Amino acid sequence: MKYGIAIFPGKELQDLANSYRKRYDPKYALIPPHITLVGEFNADNDEIKAISDKLQKVASHYHSIAIKVLKISTFQPVNNVIYLKIEQNSNLEDLHTEIINTIGVTHEHPFIPHVTLGQQLSNDEHLDLYSSLRMRTFSHEETADRFHLLYELENGSWTVFETFRLGKDE
Amino acid sequence: MKYGIAIFPGKELQDLANSYRKRYDPKYALIPPHITLVGEFNADNDEIKAISDKLQKVASHYHSIAIKVLKISTFQPVNNVIYLKIEQNSNLEDLHTEIINTIGVTHEHPFIPHVTLGQQLSNDEHLDLYSSLRMRTFSHEETADRFHLLYELENGSWTVFETFRLGKDE
Repeated sequence: MKYGIAIFPGKELQDLANSYRKRYDPKYALIPPHITLVGEFNADNDEIKAISDKLQKVASHYHSIAIKVLKISTFQPVNNVIYLKIEQNSNLEDLHTEIINTIGVTHEHPFIPHVTLGQQLSNDEHLDLYSSLRMRTFSHEETADRFHLLYELENGSWTVFETFRLGKDE
Repeated sequence: MKYGIAIFPGKELQDLANSYRKRYDPKYALIPPHITLVGEFNADNDEIKAISDKLQKVASHYHSIAIKVLKISTFQPVNNVIYLKIEQNSNLEDLHTEIINTIGVTHEHPFIPHVTLGQQLSNDEHLDLYSSLRMRTFSHEETADRFHLLYELENGSWTVFETFRLGKDE
């Protein structure tokens, strides 16, 4: 089964992201707005139990993660994705690295924490959206105290399998 | 904020439900297939923390819940909802009652555990779907070991706030 790991920001930031995603993100209906910690990885039922236990241990090493949005950005020219950039911080970076090492997946890209607003945009759409959004001020701060392990259904949507609360060790 | 409590059945049952929901359930994109334990209830940030702690206690009283599907059914004439009927069992009933009492919401309806396949159907659609599905055999058994607390976004979609694993007490 295909799994992924993500942080869901608070309702306010999710509602903001969805106001753009509705029009600009073909994956709008498949998953709520999120910060990806690990993209897709495969695991069978036994493996995921072991991974799940290890993730709970990882979660216990952190108390909270600052989520700070200052601006929008784009992955162009790599791809036409426009996103809210989450300010990198050592906690978030360490959490990501520890999770990656725990699962044993390899970094394909550098970790750029973000909440997608639009993707699979044509060049014209990308230009329009980016031009209008870069003039706007985005300023938002919150604290995450949990992350989630999700799995993918056949229709491409994601269901939460487990929540890991930071600072808890069962 | 609006919260709800649900069990997500395994991927196989979710995929089956989605194959009908895609066409017959206008809420298809808003939440994965689920068994509702508590419909919408309101709570503020402080309240939900207390509720969350209490739900973890409730979860610790159970080890697993049998999820057994034998047939489809309908809520007609109350409303045109067609669903996979989950066989009632004392664990599931007790879990539901304990959660309801913990949160302090009142029963509006008797608890009929189910996974919705179609809703808001016209009478014709309802008749068509029900006639074709009642001829099919549905037979599925699995064991749930967790339930989820979710909150609603402005667009009507639901995000998981927390997972409660049965048999665990933190």
